[in-house]
Amino acid sequence: MARRELDLDLAVVISRITSALQRALADVLPEGDQLGPRHRTVLAFVQPDGSRAVDLARESGQHKQVIGTLVDELEALGYVRRAPDPTDRRAKLIVPTERGHRQIAGTAAAIADVERRLAAALGEPAYRQFKQSARRVAEILRES
Amino acid sequence: MARRELDLDLAVVISRITSALQRALADVLPEGDQLGPRHRTVLAFVQPDGSRAVDLARESGQHKQVIGTLVDELEALGYVRRAPDPTDRRAKLIVPTERGHRQIAGTAAAIADVERRLAAALGEPAYRQFKQSARRVAEILRES
Repeated sequence: MARRELDLDLAVVISRITSALQRALADVLPEGDQLGPRHRTVLAFVQPDGSRAVDLARESGQHKQVIGTLVDELEALGYVRRAPDPTDRRAKLIVPTERGHRQIAGTAAAIADVERRLAAALGEPAYRQFKQSARRVAEILRES
Repeated sequence: MARRELDLDLAVVISRITSALQRALADVLPEGDQLGPRHRTVLAFVQPDGSRAVDLARESGQHKQVIGTLVDELEALGYVRRAPDPTDRRAKLIVPTERGHRQIAGTAAAIADVERRLAAALGEPAYRQFKQSARRVAEILRES
């Protein structure tokens, strides 16, 4: 056990954080139970006036095909709808429904609360440093 | 876009890291394609001579019921088998198969490679600090 804790690899640490965040979100958002972490990530990037699938793919770091499936599921669950893009009649926009807006706002509030608690526990500068490094890690992994 | 990048919330950053790690593992381990991140996490904690489900649940931070399902799936895919626990005849041990051992070793090598690249890009002290903070974040979230 002690040995494992010391050299716990990055994938395991990240997976533990994901599980804990999921539980925190499930606690405050029982309505969101049907949503997995990837749904929430995609939903977090949907702009209030709609987003294109290609932009959601780039911003969330998922393949466009995966985004299509996740958007289908979000649509079936009533969180988004597809609407014609007023600037390009061949394209569709993914637009949050009323339920989607509520979910986006509720998730954002719950995550902000978790982040306030983490900043209080680690200290504000250490938490800011951690998040900055985490963003760099995500960028480096995306580029490589 | 720029605005979003600046205040990107913790859940989104962690989800991007997870996606990138998954891609890195899929690249080097085509055999592992059927395994999701939660399977890999559970498998990472299975000891060479077997582990009990209750220990896998504690170490991976998943509910015991979830562990049961993941172990069923890992067993169906041939990565683990259930065997009687020699120290407690009412209990079962989850033991890696030959395929499971290969997968555990391959995943560990791939993650170690990713971590070496991250340490080179961020600098060794900054990467060590990041991992230490990530472990603290996982602990704090688990306790709260």
